[in-house]
Amino acid sequence: MFSQIKKGLFRLNWHVIANMLGNVLWVEGLLMLLPLFVTFIYQDGGTLAFALTIVIALLIGIPLSRIKTKRSAYFAKDGMIAVGLSWIAVSMVGALPFYFSGEIPSYIDAFFETVSGFTTTGSSILTDVEALTHGMLFWRSFTHWVGGMGVLVFVLALIPKSNERTMHIMRAEVPGPTIGKLVPRLKQTAMILYQIYMVMTIIETILLVLGGMPLFDSLCHSFGTAGTGGFGIKATSIGYYDNAYFDAVITIFMILFGVNFNIFYFILIKDFKQAFKDIEMRTYFGIIAISIVLIAINILPMYDGFLEAIRYSSFQVGSIITTTGYSSCDFNLWPTFSKIILFLLMFMGASAGSTGGGIKVSRIMIVAKKVKMDLQKLIHPQKVDAITMNGKIVPEETVNQILSFFGCYMLILAFCVLAVSLDGFDFESTFTSVVACLSNIGPGLGICGPMGSFAPFSDLSKIILSGAMLIGRLEIYPILILMVPLYWKPKKNKQKNYH
Amino acid sequence: MFSQIKKGLFRLNWHVIANMLGNVLWVEGLLMLLPLFVTFIYQDGGTLAFALTIVIALLIGIPLSRIKTKRSAYFAKDGMIAVGLSWIAVSMVGALPFYFSGEIPSYIDAFFETVSGFTTTGSSILTDVEALTHGMLFWRSFTHWVGGMGVLVFVLALIPKSNERTMHIMRAEVPGPTIGKLVPRLKQTAMILYQIYMVMTIIETILLVLGGMPLFDSLCHSFGTAGTGGFGIKATSIGYYDNAYFDAVITIFMILFGVNFNIFYFILIKDFKQAFKDIEMRTYFGIIAISIVLIAINILPMYDGFLEAIRYSSFQVGSIITTTGYSSCDFNLWPTFSKIILFLLMFMGASAGSTGGGIKVSRIMIVAKKVKMDLQKLIHPQKVDAITMNGKIVPEETVNQILSFFGCYMLILAFCVLAVSLDGFDFESTFTSVVACLSNIGPGLGICGPMGSFAPFSDLSKIILSGAMLIGRLEIYPILILMVPLYWKPKKNKQKNYH
Repeated sequence: MFSQIKKGLFRLNWHVIANMLGNVLWVEGLLMLLPLFVTFIYQDGGTLAFALTIVIALLIGIPLSRIKTKRSAYFAKDGMIAVGLSWIAVSMVGALPFYFSGEIPSYIDAFFETVSGFTTTGSSILTDVEALTHGMLFWRSFTHWVGGMGVLVFVLALIPKSNERTMHIMRAEVPGPTIGKLVPRLKQTAMILYQIYMVMTIIETILLVLGGMPLFDSLCHSFGTAGTGGFGIKATSIGYYDNAYFDAVITIFMILFGVNFNIFYFILIKDFKQAFKDIEMRTYFGIIAISIVLIAINILPMYDGFLEAIRYSSFQVGSIITTTGYSSCDFNLWPTFSKIILFLLMFMGASAGSTGGGIKVSRIMIVAKKVKMDLQKLIHPQKVDAITMNGKIVPEETVNQILSFFGCYMLILAFCVLAVSLDGFDFESTFTSVVACLSNIGPGLGICGPMGSFAPFSDLSKIILSGAMLIGRLEIYPILILMVPLYWKPKKNKQKNYH
Repeated sequence: MFSQIKKGLFRLNWHVIANMLGNVLWVEGLLMLLPLFVTFIYQDGGTLAFALTIVIALLIGIPLSRIKTKRSAYFAKDGMIAVGLSWIAVSMVGALPFYFSGEIPSYIDAFFETVSGFTTTGSSILTDVEALTHGMLFWRSFTHWVGGMGVLVFVLALIPKSNERTMHIMRAEVPGPTIGKLVPRLKQTAMILYQIYMVMTIIETILLVLGGMPLFDSLCHSFGTAGTGGFGIKATSIGYYDNAYFDAVITIFMILFGVNFNIFYFILIKDFKQAFKDIEMRTYFGIIAISIVLIAINILPMYDGFLEAIRYSSFQVGSIITTTGYSSCDFNLWPTFSKIILFLLMFMGASAGSTGGGIKVSRIMIVAKKVKMDLQKLIHPQKVDAITMNGKIVPEETVNQILSFFGCYMLILAFCVLAVSLDGFDFESTFTSVVACLSNIGPGLGICGPMGSFAPFSDLSKIILSGAMLIGRLEIYPILILMVPLYWKPKKNKQKNYH
């Protein structure tokens, strides 16, 4: 068996993978210059921790990035493994400043927090976030921004000679069942997406500053919104400001960042027809509107008038469906009906091709269409319809992959819930902690609710939940593939092969 | 639209459906002679209620059953609709004795209780089951026994001229992804299955009587075990007797009734090789063994020694995985890890072709195999394996149907949870009440836990949960098809048809 693993390992294109890892690490080192700069401004500590981490990142990253590719053979599996390993490496290095500075004394906690940042989950083990220094708070929020659009896609947009590999990387890293090229060259697609992303983040920051939020706070919250991450810098999240204008701006931007970025591209090139006919986007906005109204009616008795109920319900719906996870109030206290709507939105998540997590609206739509089709097939076995999205037929293979994704998601959910239940917390906390991590939302209900924290969980649970966050963000396969090394070698088939 | 519905309705073979309904109703009337007989023995009331219901059942049933089939065209959809309508009709009539006697004053409650009986769910709206008269207790448990193997399959085994229609009925009524014919003629297959079922029920009754349980109690509990239903006749279910021998007998029989009945047939004809190589059965027993041990270790501190922990854990595992729902103690008080194991077993359910509910072990296995295959495909895109069960290739269409079933199950779960959450009970109770009904288990956790009841839920929730029980028992389609009348007419396809 051991020799089989070895043989399997050699079949991978390790040079490309190492090269990728190196590039990602030195870029991360450079990105840390920003929080380092913040520590100089505020002078409240953390400078040494960042400096040390930058040195480590560059020392590992630069030599690795110099590795030349000898073999040109490069497959989807290499892309998957490169993405999976890069995200783990980036999180391990990204956790160092928290650990070195002693602001998060346990390395596992720091790792959990960083994974939560890059995967844009926003679950936190901190019980007192306001105790962190400015540099750490900035880095923590900045990981959301970097992770939102994809760490590797960012790197690929930066480094000069990225080629057809990009497709495999984007496929593995950008959320959603399918990935469309906007322009013929993928590197350019990545650049365009990052430009839209950056401009929208800047607009949100400006709007918040104009409303009177300090620049530092505005930046951190915009990073969290853009990545649909949800790390706040106050114990009570956005609720701290208790400002309807801030709530409105953040609500609108959270919902916008949950839209497929291709839509913004179409708007940019003034192809409005293409932009507004998108059925996933329409369904996404439809679900948001219905959920906001239902919750507002349900929580009406708790607030002063319908407008205030709408304010809180729209913020929370936007926050949960996009899997951002900001809170403007403690929705753990809301009635069960509202909590269940939020719980279901958690599963669903935002649009494909956005920075949001979850199963994605389009996947749920395709599953629903498949169910409808099966029902029709029972009645008219001779007539077979195809599933369509936006008037195009969805290939049967894509449908089956989505159904398989759905099944896999549920099996992983079951496994993680079982593991976390060993900690002995109540049913609600156990169940929603895993859903919150796997769907990259952030807060769950119960002890890990919006005003709670993941601190009480055991180290084992924190590691499993970190894995769940990575699995959720990378949509299962890039992480799962790392856990089955035996599969890396071709398996002798006992059955006849189809081709 | 209205004329379309009408056209669609006319396309159904209503004669066959009415004929089926009639047969089912008069057989139900005859079956009620048994509880009527019980009321004569115990003389504690209910005689009139049963007599009246029998008259109604025969008055409706006999004329309908005389309807002659004019058209021979008979399709899967007619079978589905016949099954769906029959189960609803049987439950509506079966609820009458409870209502007429005033022992369950609300008709909706009586309907819920009867649906729960026939679907072998075992959820109860009664808060004091011991207040019922003997006749009602007997009928309540007897519905489990009749519903377990299938009301219509039972009728088909009885009435003389059942023909090739049987296949469609069995396909719609017998749980599991596929249905095997044991012998060439299906009517005979149904007879053989019912004979095994009857003999096993009698053996269990004798074993319980030998241990000192009164005959009436033994019969009721054997009906509940055989149908994997779970209605008890005492407030504390089997815990009332606090007898290790009874627990052991019922545990063993619960687990046996969760095995595919084909296995017993193979044992009966001494084809042991065929019987013991079945991979679903092995997995089923494996999961049971692991769950029993894990829970026993987990609950050890609550009991006197390992043996007692094994006694309670094995009873509960057997009860939940087969979706029987008996309880020998209040597992709501167990640690979260044990509760989560039970919760996951709830979803999984027993084997295909058994009387148990849930998604079924074989479906979960096929989903897991599909996930594994997809992972392998990522690494070796050129090599495509097929999914096998017991060495036979599972057709890709079956795999896709199972995945689609899985998706549909989750969507229905989401819809029902949302509806029930309107009642405003806690998260745990809301969520598990639906899972318990949809998987035909019986008790959930929280207010509807083993020592609780479904009485506090609203009428709307009770109707929705009744629907969930029927959907769970008939495996979705026969009930879902009743809700989409427009589909009954052929739809004009906008897309090109594949054939």
